[in-house]
Amino acid sequence: MISPLRIGIVGLGTVGGATVKILTRQAALLEERCGRKIVVAGISARHKNKKRGVDIKNIRWFDDPLKLAADKDIDVVVETIGGAEGVAKAVVEKALASGKSVVTANKALIAHHGAALAKLAEKNNAVLAFEAAVCGAIPVIKTLRDGLSANRILRIAGILNGTCNYILTSMAEKKCSFEQALKEARSRGYVEADPSFDVDGTDTAHKLSILSALAYGAPPAPRGVFTEGISRITLSDIEFAAELGYVIKLLGISTLTDKGLLQRVHPAMVPAAAPLATVQGALNAVALEGDACGTVFLEGAGAGGEPTASSVVADIVDIARGASYKPFTLPANRLKSPGFADIGALDCSYYLRLSVTDRPGVLAEVTGILKEENISLRSFLQHSRQPNETVQVVMVTHETGEAAMQKAAAQVAKLKAVKEKPCLIRIENL
Amino acid sequence: MISPLRIGIVGLGTVGGATVKILTRQAALLEERCGRKIVVAGISARHKNKKRGVDIKNIRWFDDPLKLAADKDIDVVVETIGGAEGVAKAVVEKALASGKSVVTANKALIAHHGAALAKLAEKNNAVLAFEAAVCGAIPVIKTLRDGLSANRILRIAGILNGTCNYILTSMAEKKCSFEQALKEARSRGYVEADPSFDVDGTDTAHKLSILSALAYGAPPAPRGVFTEGISRITLSDIEFAAELGYVIKLLGISTLTDKGLLQRVHPAMVPAAAPLATVQGALNAVALEGDACGTVFLEGAGAGGEPTASSVVADIVDIARGASYKPFTLPANRLKSPGFADIGALDCSYYLRLSVTDRPGVLAEVTGILKEENISLRSFLQHSRQPNETVQVVMVTHETGEAAMQKAAAQVAKLKAVKEKPCLIRIENL
Repeated sequence: MISPLRIGIVGLGTVGGATVKILTRQAALLEERCGRKIVVAGISARHKNKKRGVDIKNIRWFDDPLKLAADKDIDVVVETIGGAEGVAKAVVEKALASGKSVVTANKALIAHHGAALAKLAEKNNAVLAFEAAVCGAIPVIKTLRDGLSANRILRIAGILNGTCNYILTSMAEKKCSFEQALKEARSRGYVEADPSFDVDGTDTAHKLSILSALAYGAPPAPRGVFTEGISRITLSDIEFAAELGYVIKLLGISTLTDKGLLQRVHPAMVPAAAPLATVQGALNAVALEGDACGTVFLEGAGAGGEPTASSVVADIVDIARGASYKPFTLPANRLKSPGFADIGALDCSYYLRLSVTDRPGVLAEVTGILKEENISLRSFLQHSRQPNETVQVVMVTHETGEAAMQKAAAQVAKLKAVKEKPCLIRIENL
Repeated sequence: MISPLRIGIVGLGTVGGATVKILTRQAALLEERCGRKIVVAGISARHKNKKRGVDIKNIRWFDDPLKLAADKDIDVVVETIGGAEGVAKAVVEKALASGKSVVTANKALIAHHGAALAKLAEKNNAVLAFEAAVCGAIPVIKTLRDGLSANRILRIAGILNGTCNYILTSMAEKKCSFEQALKEARSRGYVEADPSFDVDGTDTAHKLSILSALAYGAPPAPRGVFTEGISRITLSDIEFAAELGYVIKLLGISTLTDKGLLQRVHPAMVPAAAPLATVQGALNAVALEGDACGTVFLEGAGAGGEPTASSVVADIVDIARGASYKPFTLPANRLKSPGFADIGALDCSYYLRLSVTDRPGVLAEVTGILKEENISLRSFLQHSRQPNETVQVVMVTHETGEAAMQKAAAQVAKLKAVKEKPCLIRIENL
């Protein structure tokens, strides 16, 4: 019998607490599956005596998380504090430098410092595992690293943020505004105190950059992700989308183009029958397209204590079984950025919604501008027409270049009859 | 640099051929991902000079597959012949006994002899890998073994046979009979010369028994799977299902009950909004429910050369990276059958379709029989009523026991007014 694997957990919030619970509840099963015991040998969190619904009184307590990270009686450090800098980063660095493997759910940390941490892990023969950092319970990291390892990945497209998906689903179901849906999401505990990381797309960009790194052998680089949030999406957009046969989702999409890696996060119109369009509420999902496998679609809980801890513990099990993989599949010094393609390099169809004064000649002006950029229309919608009032006009273009579309939209915005900044949504034929 | 991993491939049909293609096309990428070269060092198939669209002239040829399986210059044997007995079994046994790891896409072999082969593999420190045996390109085996390893699995429910799903999808879309849909599937190459293994549910039962083994730590046992095929499903059933808000799918479902392992393969009504209901054409999908992760849903190509070979090559990559897992997670001598629960132990709602002579009193007779078994109705449908003709009557029950339902259906079948064997379909609230 191999000696038990001794786990030190730093941070006892939702995910840290659930990790302790699963390791306790499933102790016998995990021992069978690993051929060795897994024990929680140390814990560090901000408040020792906070009520948590998990019994920690028999577990060694560390006031200083850095002491836990370097302790000789800890084999693996689980970091669930969060944040790209500060204590989380210091703990992970200390643990790796001490030759301990690290399991983390921290997407910001891995997105910003993943390549450097991977180097540190490899130098110290430690594993750095972060399945829980992307898509909660869905084993998307393992799927890219192991399940689809035979494939050249052609495209990743995912719903990587449950809060945004909950808000967009709510707006569609309850026919409410973005603000109302956000408020309701908050009352259900789906929103952080500061929701901006979620709704402005930053969180999705972090996760997408991690998936891209695994898929394309590049260091993760959130700065290389074009990012637009969902706060400008209106109920009108969602209703027009439905009329056109689409559902609006916040997607993270990455492809390797001949101009470099194109990574983008933005609201997108997805055909109503596509798997990604059917993802409801706070669920996450990702469609991985490979040259041999075709599209493999994964869906599941993207957040929450037990689902996220399910992935944390799966990483611990890998380590207990003797896993020795490189964090991003390739050795860290072989990760190479293919350069970033600008969003201007994108070709797609666009949905353009305008608030215009309904007077003769406006449409001619708009279509004239589109024509100058060689943009042709596929369909056109207008609702509740009352002469001389502001009406919502929607145009759907054939495939065109992003640069031309942006130029045209800027010109259209300057028209006197156009009352608000035009709303432009990319249409993805997934 | 570690020495190259030398692969011997037995069988050069669709999957074997695609495996050679991927290993050739992706050689540089795979070398980067594994840290070593993977080379095809030997091939054996029935006909050496058959046209295959894959260049094998520089690969060592073996007339005798058993010689390949024992050859000292082969490290890993890929078996793509198929069939539970005969050459396939002999090759796998010979390879494992010679200390070589084996990768196979052979579900019948693993379902029937998996536990014995796992023992042989472990005894010889070899890996036995079969990701490609279930759900083609979808990494469902790895997901159960690694991705969800922290979970007690509560239920597996999947569309595991692309042929059946293609036929059922066709019937619904083209409003055609089972026979017409089968004929069309055959013309597209989705059907084997003898389609009975697919349409009678045997193939699904093989795959389900493999998933159950991984999930519940039991030896795979297809004889422990209750199996019903799709050939009795009519277009009427599909249309009644749609009217009731369901889609009919051939599902493999397994759960661990307090009466033992309940494994069943049969046509089932799935709520139209459930992920499994939206799986189209020849795709496969599986919903894995765990006590921590909730439901993780996976969808992708369930058959075809490149998708299946994607999983074969992923298993080869695992071995190249030094994988040493047990085939069914637990050591083979620890696999233990929890006994099999009889289908009679099932509780669910049922759809019952009757062809009856439309005369007064028939319904009273039928509902009287149901009442005797304490079965209550949730809804009732009847179409195209013309007095004294045979009409289709559909009843949907509240949740009831399978044993009571079967007894009632047998009684109903004996009624003089009932013209055909009643059609009974289980309703799954997934």
